[in-house]
Amino acid sequence: MEPVIALCRDLISRPSVTPEDAGCQVLMMDRLAALGFRCTPLPFGNTENFWAEHGDPAGPLFVFAGHTDVVPPGPASAWESDPFTPTETDGMLRGRGAADMKGSLAAMVVATERFIASHPDHRGRIGFLITSDEEGPATDGTVRVVEWLREQGTTIDWCLVGEPSSSEHVGDVVKNGRRGSLGATLTVRGVQGHVAYPQRADNPIHRALPALAELASRHWDAGNDFFPPTSLQLTNAYGGTGATNVVPGEFTVLFNFRFSTESTAAGLKAAVEEIFDRHGLDYHLHWTLFGEPFLTPEGELVAATQAAIRAVTGRETLLSTAGGTSDGRFIAPTGAQVLELGPVNATIHQVNECVRCEDLLTLAEIYESVLGKLLAD
Amino acid sequence: MEPVIALCRDLISRPSVTPEDAGCQVLMMDRLAALGFRCTPLPFGNTENFWAEHGDPAGPLFVFAGHTDVVPPGPASAWESDPFTPTETDGMLRGRGAADMKGSLAAMVVATERFIASHPDHRGRIGFLITSDEEGPATDGTVRVVEWLREQGTTIDWCLVGEPSSSEHVGDVVKNGRRGSLGATLTVRGVQGHVAYPQRADNPIHRALPALAELASRHWDAGNDFFPPTSLQLTNAYGGTGATNVVPGEFTVLFNFRFSTESTAAGLKAAVEEIFDRHGLDYHLHWTLFGEPFLTPEGELVAATQAAIRAVTGRETLLSTAGGTSDGRFIAPTGAQVLELGPVNATIHQVNECVRCEDLLTLAEIYESVLGKLLAD
Ligand SMILES: [Zn+2]
Ligand SMILES: [Zn+2]
Repeated sequence: MEPVIALCRDLISRPSVTPEDAGCQVLMMDRLAALGFRCTPLPFGNTENFWAEHGDPAGPLFVFAGHTDVVPPGPASAWESDPFTPTETDGMLRGRGAADMKGSLAAMVVATERFIASHPDHRGRIGFLITSDEEGPATDGTVRVVEWLREQGTTIDWCLVGEPSSSEHVGDVVKNGRRGSLGATLTVRGVQGHVAYPQRADNPIHRALPALAELASRHWDAGNDFFPPTSLQLTNAYGGTGATNVVPGEFTVLFNFRFSTESTAAGLKAAVEEIFDRHGLDYHLHWTLFGEPFLTPEGELVAATQAAIRAVTGRETLLSTAGGTSDGRFIAPTGAQVLELGPVNATIHQVNECVRCEDLLTLAEIYESVLGKLLAD
Repeated sequence: MEPVIALCRDLISRPSVTPEDAGCQVLMMDRLAALGFRCTPLPFGNTENFWAEHGDPAGPLFVFAGHTDVVPPGPASAWESDPFTPTETDGMLRGRGAADMKGSLAAMVVATERFIASHPDHRGRIGFLITSDEEGPATDGTVRVVEWLREQGTTIDWCLVGEPSSSEHVGDVVKNGRRGSLGATLTVRGVQGHVAYPQRADNPIHRALPALAELASRHWDAGNDFFPPTSLQLTNAYGGTGATNVVPGEFTVLFNFRFSTESTAAGLKAAVEEIFDRHGLDYHLHWTLFGEPFLTPEGELVAATQAAIRAVTGRETLLSTAGGTSDGRFIAPTGAQVLELGPVNATIHQVNECVRCEDLLTLAEIYESVLGKLLAD
């Protein structure tokens, strides 16, 4: 059996539902330690993480980043085969985490083994930054390891995150950034009362409507070459006592920005507050910043990755920033060049998640080729 | 003990939480039958009702209308005395229903007894239309009895409803109409999706906002001498899956009109639908008409009632249409002149509901005086 497939099956068979690691990281560290990696387990709270590095501290630092945790499989009976029993059918390997992202982890390890075998004295360093908290709250995972690295004085130059970036063929899409995500809970206060006596009530829904209509129709920015325009979505609205004859005293609205690098969280907050202030609302806003946007428009990592994909697959790569957030948001602010490259994402987080076995072999070749372009001696 | 107080206490001690009657109507029918009334129990569904009449079918028909049911008392421990144990303190009679409207029922019966004693051969007829379903859904009560009367060929000329109309002194306010009440449940349909891919979703909250803002700010009519302007209140708004990153597929808003006789339910419905159509919404509207507005601006009943209040109390009466709906909405459409006259409503539906004993005696005198002005031979 191909080593990449064998390792991926080993990882899938460990039921590491977030934030559980279920022994995946020990398996990875054993393989890396055998190559001479210096491995450091970094548990925080209920989250398993590790950092591993190999090579010369004086040179540039290339990092593979990823997560061993997976989203819950849902009822196993809905799957064609047990979600934690890796199963191959028609060239596809099925199991929870096959695509997101145990296939990538296996490809990273095997690519590193092959690269070190052929380049035992490579320049710079290879690092692994692995967490078990990417699918969960992401508070005790990559963000804490990045903090620990900063305390160690360790600076990442290039980082490949193994998130499943590909659309139809492995390598057809690489994520070179992600939009920022900013959430808010708005509470508009009024005065509760009976609909029969509207003059004694102050309807917070009525008060909020013109401001919310302005919010929903506002143009925030035009995006840029890499980002679509910033988008605001009102996702939840709750007001009312349930009684049809009572004007509620409060109205609550949740909304979420996905924003480009043309906007900042601070700028969006100020613009929203200006609208609510101008409309004279009695309101409270609770903001949650899930991540500022990040972007790696060009540089050595982009060049090496595009060249590696072209060399292995003959395919040109689309740089994209679409999709949700990823742990790249924690690594990019350190100044690192960050790209996400992994298998086809068609089935992630779904029943019968699967990955093409051939794609994992190709992915390992691409990863090895990137290492060669950046760190060959 | 004064007969009005004694009867009111008897009624309060029967725990007739809507739609229960708990023997109140039998008590009233016994008293009326003793006067020669022809009593007809008219149970519908779980609701007790009765119709009683006395006098000459050829003459005009005056009706006392009311309800024996009361709203739930809530926890008895919150009351100063048990809600179904009539208790007198400082000239006030306390108990659930004291003001709404067992005091009025007692005053109606005693006033009728006295009037018939002094006018055994009065002209026309006196009727009683009593239900136990006014505080509940009001589907098997007055509306059904009115239908039954129509089938009998019985037409009401004048009707006094015993609802507690008074503000500070008994008789200071008489209700000569009520606003209409029209409710709606609006569902705006969109397409659910993830906030990261707004182009694949169609946010029903965003779609609805401009139309709802127009709805909330619209001027419907200016009211008239007896009615304030028609008022619309958005009472409940529900949208969202609870997840902050999901655009909901539907948005539901409940709203309620309280409308004057310058508008009609049909006209308001058409105006609302025009707004939603013009904004291009994919929507569904479910309407509930609780009652068209009604008004008795003048006539024999208004004149007799104002004169009676003046004669008994020396007080001038304010005609008002403020407040919620009442069973008068079912009686007025038959062509009857309808007024609501009862005790001070300061404590109705509250803990420690109470009525001034003196006011119940005054109310009985007023009711008797109205009978005299309309039906004295
Ligand atoms: Zn992932
Ligand atoms: Zn009542």
